[in-house]
Amino acid sequence: MSIVVIYGSARQNGNTEKLTERVIEGLEVEEIYLRDHTIKPIDDQRHAEGGFAEVDDDYNGLVERMMKHETFIFATPIYWYSMPGTMKNFFDRWSQTMRDKKFPDFRAELGTKKAYVVAVGGDKPMIKGLPLIQQFNYIFDFMSMSFEGYVLGKASRPGDISQDKTAFAAAAHLNEKLKNS
Amino acid sequence: MSIVVIYGSARQNGNTEKLTERVIEGLEVEEIYLRDHTIKPIDDQRHAEGGFAEVDDDYNGLVERMMKHETFIFATPIYWYSMPGTMKNFFDRWSQTMRDKKFPDFRAELGTKKAYVVAVGGDKPMIKGLPLIQQFNYIFDFMSMSFEGYVLGKASRPGDISQDKTAFAAAAHLNEKLKNS
Amino acid sequence: MSIVVIYGSARQNGNTEKLTERVIEGLEVEEIYLRDHTIKPIDDQRHAEGGFAEVDDDYNGLVERMMKHETFIFATPIYWYSMPGTMKNFFDRWSQTMRDKKFPDFRAELGTKKAYVVAVGGDKPMIKGLPLIQQFNYIFDFMSMSFEGYVLGKASRPGDISQDKTAFAAAAHLNEKLKNS
Amino acid sequence: MSIVVIYGSARQNGNTEKLTERVIEGLEVEEIYLRDHTIKPIDDQRHAEGGFAEVDDDYNGLVERMMKHETFIFATPIYWYSMPGTMKNFFDRWSQTMRDKKFPDFRAELGTKKAYVVAVGGDKPMIKGLPLIQQFNYIFDFMSMSFEGYVLGKASRPGDISQDKTAFAAAAHLNEKLKNS
Repeated sequence: MSIVVIYGSARQNGNTEKLTERVIEGLEVEEIYLRDHTIKPIDDQRHAEGGFAEVDDDYNGLVERMMKHETFIFATPIYWYSMPGTMKNFFDRWSQTMRDKKFPDFRAELGTKKAYVVAVGGDKPMIKGLPLIQQFNYIFDFMSMSFEGYVLGKASRPGDISQDKTAFAAAAHLNEKLKNS
Repeated sequence: MSIVVIYGSARQNGNTEKLTERVIEGLEVEEIYLRDHTIKPIDDQRHAEGGFAEVDDDYNGLVERMMKHETFIFATPIYWYSMPGTMKNFFDRWSQTMRDKKFPDFRAELGTKKAYVVAVGGDKPMIKGLPLIQQFNYIFDFMSMSFEGYVLGKASRPGDISQDKTAFAAAAHLNEKLKNS
Repeated sequence: MSIVVIYGSARQNGNTEKLTERVIEGLEVEEIYLRDHTIKPIDDQRHAEGGFAEVDDDYNGLVERMMKHETFIFATPIYWYSMPGTMKNFFDRWSQTMRDKKFPDFRAELGTKKAYVVAVGGDKPMIKGLPLIQQFNYIFDFMSMSFEGYVLGKASRPGDISQDKTAFAAAAHLNEKLKNS
Repeated sequence: MSIVVIYGSARQNGNTEKLTERVIEGLEVEEIYLRDHTIKPIDDQRHAEGGFAEVDDDYNGLVERMMKHETFIFATPIYWYSMPGTMKNFFDRWSQTMRDKKFPDFRAELGTKKAYVVAVGGDKPMIKGLPLIQQFNYIFDFMSMSFEGYVLGKASRPGDISQDKTAFAAAAHLNEKLKNS
């Protein structure tokens, strides 16, 4: 089993990354920090003559790196009760990749992947983060990916996350599970 | 009452715009098409020394245009069960505006606004669009905005929306309501 | 097309019934008022030797009446953000019916039915009624029933519902749809 | 801190009870098994002259037992994506208790309580149990109760729950938390 973590955080060493570090402790993983890359919003040409035009940014390279792995961990802060726009642009572009000849098996291959979500927010994430979890579930379902679990953490200011013992217990358990799979 | 429509669509004259046209028929509204503007992702400096740095893009100008109105209609296609990244970046940046001296009354003023959502998706939006509605509700609640209603429409290919009679009936009713308020 | 309405209201001529009357105006329907019948809670014997024991109450008769129709309308007040216990007991018993030799085709037949929900609550039903809608969707999905639509109304005191013009517009539209199908 | 567990299970020693046993291991708790008591559905007389009539069943006695404690654990199987009708009837009756002179401080006292939920279902409870969690949250919010956490477990047949290691890790953590509070 090979793991990739896709980070949506805008801030380095933030709460989301700290909680995710516990999840991947002692594991070899590839880490993709979306904030370090340019991902343009989708130009929706699904119904345009000629289809999608090629886009000059880092997106395709990130997809290639991601698809080499079997297990995906989406690690994201919760901004305004959802994933940040940067991560959302990454998912929006999947609509293009599904029609991209360079990725002929994108959807079929995704259907063999396992997915986890780690999400950290400041405003009652245990409850107000649930619509985001439901959306991840719909995305994974659409792609026949297996949604294996999620960890919700509570934190606002830097370092806050260390006080969410429940989230760290869940992260530790997930770490065990990943090590034994 | 003065109305602004904020469009999240990536495509011109798409289904979301068609349904929204019914909502605003015969009304004078200001229209903001996010796709025509540059809105950078938030650089989360909430906890950085010195706070947020100024950003060189179109965002502040759009906020100024929006805030002149009393009623906001967020008109968005549903991409991957949520709003497009472009619109999400617009909301993400609110975190900066809340701390921006140029907008000292941003939150207080938002608390006097009325909000509506028009959202159009292809995959069972009546059900799978509900987490998005819940997220809009959390955003509006956080800002003490009054969430006055939403219309969910079903459409994938260009023109599809005209077949969703239920959505158009709801749009027509909302149009009446806006005219009489 | 033949329609049955299953009412979960505890109160006669309440807001839920008033809104539903608009939905079925001019249509011939069979009406089942759950409050007028005895429906015992399920005694979960799915895993008991010998399976479920027969239950002496009105439930089986109600199922027989319901199954004669093609379109089901579940009309329910929202109590504590969900359907009343009486209606929930009705659904809970479906677990028994699925294993009941007297209803050998229960699940298969349900898979041919269309379902609508009319739900009326006093506390922001447009938002706080959505988990109930999601649960109905899961039930219908499990049974392969087609979830055709829902109407959410806002009302607390007797008569309140008449002020929810949006709900009545949706009810009127649904009435048209039912007449033309 | 004094704890009461309110069980909604229809079956003895079922999966919900097994998972809950881990939560309360080594703790002194009062246990209420709703299935052993008669709880009539609410007769909605909120708006009737004279208000609610007294009901001859076990409900009031159960409320008295419950209110002696500071921490409530609602332990429930997930039937049809929600709590069983018996437990729902228990909550529905709260509408009567709120207006019952015998419980003049019902709502105010509830506002001092802490609440947890343990819910076990067979069909993807991690996702399909979330509307139930959202409903519990609305109930607790309405009563100003503090929703301290929840554990979702997956099980269908007797004993299944022992295979949900993630649920047991969460239960063990909650047990620690309860012991230290």
